[in-house]
Amino acid sequence: MARLPPVQAVQPTKPLLRTLAGLPAERPPIWLMRQAGRYLPEYRETRARAGSFLDLCYDPELAAEVTLQPIRRFGFDAAILFADILLIPQALGQGLAFRENEGPVLDAIRGAAELTRLNPQGIHARLGPVYEAVGRIRTALPDDCTLIGFAGAPWTVATYMLEGRGSTDHAAAKTWAFGNPAALSSLLAILVEATVSYLDRQVKAGAEVLQLFDTWAGVLPEMEFRRFCVEPVRQIIARMKELHPGVPVIAFPRGAGLYLEGYAAATGADALGLDYTVPLGWARDHLWPKTVVQGNLDPRLLVTGGPALAEGVQRLLRSFGGRNHIFNLGHGIVPETPVRHVEQLVRLVKGTETSV
Amino acid sequence: MARLPPVQAVQPTKPLLRTLAGLPAERPPIWLMRQAGRYLPEYRETRARAGSFLDLCYDPELAAEVTLQPIRRFGFDAAILFADILLIPQALGQGLAFRENEGPVLDAIRGAAELTRLNPQGIHARLGPVYEAVGRIRTALPDDCTLIGFAGAPWTVATYMLEGRGSTDHAAAKTWAFGNPAALSSLLAILVEATVSYLDRQVKAGAEVLQLFDTWAGVLPEMEFRRFCVEPVRQIIARMKELHPGVPVIAFPRGAGLYLEGYAAATGADALGLDYTVPLGWARDHLWPKTVVQGNLDPRLLVTGGPALAEGVQRLLRSFGGRNHIFNLGHGIVPETPVRHVEQLVRLVKGTETSV
Repeated sequence: MARLPPVQAVQPTKPLLRTLAGLPAERPPIWLMRQAGRYLPEYRETRARAGSFLDLCYDPELAAEVTLQPIRRFGFDAAILFADILLIPQALGQGLAFRENEGPVLDAIRGAAELTRLNPQGIHARLGPVYEAVGRIRTALPDDCTLIGFAGAPWTVATYMLEGRGSTDHAAAKTWAFGNPAALSSLLAILVEATVSYLDRQVKAGAEVLQLFDTWAGVLPEMEFRRFCVEPVRQIIARMKELHPGVPVIAFPRGAGLYLEGYAAATGADALGLDYTVPLGWARDHLWPKTVVQGNLDPRLLVTGGPALAEGVQRLLRSFGGRNHIFNLGHGIVPETPVRHVEQLVRLVKGTETSV
Repeated sequence: MARLPPVQAVQPTKPLLRTLAGLPAERPPIWLMRQAGRYLPEYRETRARAGSFLDLCYDPELAAEVTLQPIRRFGFDAAILFADILLIPQALGQGLAFRENEGPVLDAIRGAAELTRLNPQGIHARLGPVYEAVGRIRTALPDDCTLIGFAGAPWTVATYMLEGRGSTDHAAAKTWAFGNPAALSSLLAILVEATVSYLDRQVKAGAEVLQLFDTWAGVLPEMEFRRFCVEPVRQIIARMKELHPGVPVIAFPRGAGLYLEGYAAATGADALGLDYTVPLGWARDHLWPKTVVQGNLDPRLLVTGGPALAEGVQRLLRSFGGRNHIFNLGHGIVPETPVRHVEQLVRLVKGTETSV
């Protein structure tokens, strides 16, 4: 029997993929959470043309356009699909609207019986334009720029589905967690299925890396955190590794603090996004370099700019020396961020501006 | 020269004071943050009689009444003065109102020049009724019940003074922290002075233990956390230890997560309040028993009640075995908490109900 030739491991050439593969780098690759957003005049112009926020998400041409805008302007090492973590609930059949200055509003699920309203089979009909956007973006990207697909982590998505909106105390979701854990698990199982299917399609359309946003990972006691936050993320990553073993997954469990140690091992994530409260020395001692870390400049420091920004950036660069580190913010960029501060940041990280 | 007789160290008899002194106990003392509150029908009745929330804070008779109500009903081991952390800004001269279902509204300080509006000398004129309430409460308390005075920690109070209201991103305060740290330090210095003076008067009026609430301790990067969060608390505690060496101070840096280790040593706090996200095993291994810990049942679990509550309580009791542990919630009790669940909780902690 003829033997197959040995598989030649091809080293990636794109900076983000190299760092995610643990390869050495002169500087960390850089992208910013919510880099396609309202701080950019060209985004505001495109958004106005699209109509509502959701219209923009579901318009492949315009979603691709806003995804590409920050790449053109700043030369980031990665583009992240323009979409929203709440497209999944909407695709499952839950009513969703974005009201200006108010955030998302959903038809809250009031009890376990209402879970039957969700239809996991039908999601792709609505999400087709997202996959089309992924394809358009991938085709248009510069050779060295990586395309990141994403989804919300099930716990975070569930908090919105159960509250019907953003909340500070997550009362509805926690009431399910404590009072009806089986029903919450059913909802999370639906979300795991839908998310795997959604991310699979994103990868098939051209996404090269995936990020799971778990914005509300930091609001649960330990047992509930492990059961409702970690476990669904672990399941999604395990399934994605079966489907697409070569596609790295970045997990961003915001606010997870004392749960961060062991989180990457528990979930199988290839890299761990750190919010801005994570001390750099701690991350270096307890996570890195075994875990590739991403983050974690405070977005408010990017609003402030000037010497304070330069000092913060240099501190972050020095902490990891460019190795197994993806430069990012510790949370999404905020609308009032001056464009020139982002330019300054990119120059600092790329080493074309070093003065403090 | 006649020598003074040796000072006889008198061991405290009140359960909370004994635990804070590191003495053994059969069970942890118990009190609940915001135990005087809207979940109690008698509180709602008294509150309606007083008028506004602030009217209630400044009425010594009624403030004492609502402080004592949960002691009478549940037999907690400690009463905590009924007041608000924003009385200090108001006493300093900042406009303050509480709007129903909206929380506090202050005349936000818009720049460093406006700090001169604050008048640290005049605070006691307005705060007199608070001290009178402390005296009334202390007189009326059962012999085994400890009176806790409190204040907001300067960083948290500053966030409200600069934002003008509660906020989720603390944009204004962080803008000061990054862009004008000297001005923020000036404000924090004013707050340290006012808080020391305020707490000194509370102790003189009868407070036996003090708690510093740092609700927004978990929103800053490390350097800013140490400078703007830890340092003012350290200063307050150092000053209180000079003024009243025998009065224990509990610090509650909510959300401080990865900063909790070393926090008690850095601030001089006698005990550390833990929010509900702090894993019990971690607290046992990294804080306790050297540090007396307080907490940390999720208030939403108290709303849920039933077997889930009983299990959560037993887990918490087992973790510390009654030693160097003050039983409390990991955040304030919420208005929709059924009174019978609080009764169940007290029975479980006091060992008069053990079944799960």
